[in-house]
Amino acid sequence: MIIIGERINGMFKGVRAAIQEKNPAYIQELARKQIEAGASILDVNVGPASDQPKETMIWLVNSIQEAVDVPLSIDSPNAEVIEAGLQLCRRPALINSTTGKQADLDRLLPLAQQYGASIIGLTIDESGVPSTAEARVEIGLRIVAEAMAYDITPDRLYIDPIVLPVNCAQDQLPGVLAAIGQFQMVSDPPPHTVVGLSNVSQGTLFRSLVNRTYLVMCMAHGLDSAILDPNDTELMDAMITAELLLNKTIYCDSYLEACRKSKRVG
Amino acid sequence: MIIIGERINGMFKGVRAAIQEKNPAYIQELARKQIEAGASILDVNVGPASDQPKETMIWLVNSIQEAVDVPLSIDSPNAEVIEAGLQLCRRPALINSTTGKQADLDRLLPLAQQYGASIIGLTIDESGVPSTAEARVEIGLRIVAEAMAYDITPDRLYIDPIVLPVNCAQDQLPGVLAAIGQFQMVSDPPPHTVVGLSNVSQGTLFRSLVNRTYLVMCMAHGLDSAILDPNDTELMDAMITAELLLNKTIYCDSYLEACRKSKRVG
Repeated sequence: MIIIGERINGMFKGVRAAIQEKNPAYIQELARKQIEAGASILDVNVGPASDQPKETMIWLVNSIQEAVDVPLSIDSPNAEVIEAGLQLCRRPALINSTTGKQADLDRLLPLAQQYGASIIGLTIDESGVPSTAEARVEIGLRIVAEAMAYDITPDRLYIDPIVLPVNCAQDQLPGVLAAIGQFQMVSDPPPHTVVGLSNVSQGTLFRSLVNRTYLVMCMAHGLDSAILDPNDTELMDAMITAELLLNKTIYCDSYLEACRKSKRVG
Repeated sequence: MIIIGERINGMFKGVRAAIQEKNPAYIQELARKQIEAGASILDVNVGPASDQPKETMIWLVNSIQEAVDVPLSIDSPNAEVIEAGLQLCRRPALINSTTGKQADLDRLLPLAQQYGASIIGLTIDESGVPSTAEARVEIGLRIVAEAMAYDITPDRLYIDPIVLPVNCAQDQLPGVLAAIGQFQMVSDPPPHTVVGLSNVSQGTLFRSLVNRTYLVMCMAHGLDSAILDPNDTELMDAMITAELLLNKTIYCDSYLEACRKSKRVG
């Protein structure tokens, strides 16, 4: 599993305060802690913390890169903010995200090409988030085809079926599992698949339990990447155990500690 | 999910002692506790606790039925022991189990027919436990077809793909998931699917974590029944959450407590 750490996001109180106080140490500590826990990519999202999102993205990327050396996921609804982040990234970045809307594809795929970035493609189109697995796969297929026109190969594409909260779109969650399975058939080699995991538990009481249960279900259908909180130990233990049971890592009695350690080293 | 409680088994120390001391109270308490935790069927297995397995099965079934009123899963490698149990069952029982070997089918399917019992069919044949999903499905299909000849409809059949321990047959576990998915296509309506869950963690250090992770993965592929320890609270919470995320139960903020309660009542 490719773990994209979600914690550097201006919607979190501590991050908002650090942005407002221009306190890089807090952000850098968050970066280190997530990598230590197994993240190999860090998501960077200004969120609602600033009315100067471009300047704040630049400050965040610079602050993080002073402390750690991992690829960043540049996360913004605004293509200018994304480009400002991409220009600074020392490692090939991940663009988070384009949708399947033609205007977004036309704006963001050229950026991915220009900066050698990977890109997350959300299965949303001009009609919004589709309600069926089939419609999700259709949009995923379109994103893969459009990306190929910009020489963005499937190994640089992360298709995201859009996980909605269980308390408002419960009936769509089984279809998301089916879509994850089917994404693996849209190209050969297939694109990566990714979910913004914490969405599933928005507004629920047992967030960690809901998150880790749904992650394991998604992995059972072939998910190979997720945006999540790597400092949720129970979540990471479930993920490591799911990788073991999918025969992706080799069993040993101390597999939990061995995998935690290899993630820190790798 | 149909939960078959695994705890009344002579391989457990307390059960062995109760059998040897002819102490029905211990067995009856185990029965009540499993039902309270959500089991709707109780497995009854003499195990290695007695050299008079038939008499012991009779004693166990009578002891349990003095205390509780749920269907029993009569579990023995010996058809005579199974028949001794079936003769006493007040509710239609579950036979645990036949294999796909012709001799077993010829001996056990008539018993299921005669006693109106359901039956677990293990995907083992004359060549042993197959190593691929396809071979498991082939044996499952044969069991379904043979059962139909005895008027045993798919709703009375539980196909078990044989879960082997992760520390000795790790590479087969993904194929078991695939087989569970495919079993649902062998007939219309499909048979139930069942696993002996605790097998997956035999001899490992983190048994509960391994068990609940694999259960959730199996459920994501359509598993609708399992033999397990219903008194493992974390396992049951994972199962309840998986049912929620598969849209089988309706979300409410207190879904965990609501589902625990409904399982006790139902």
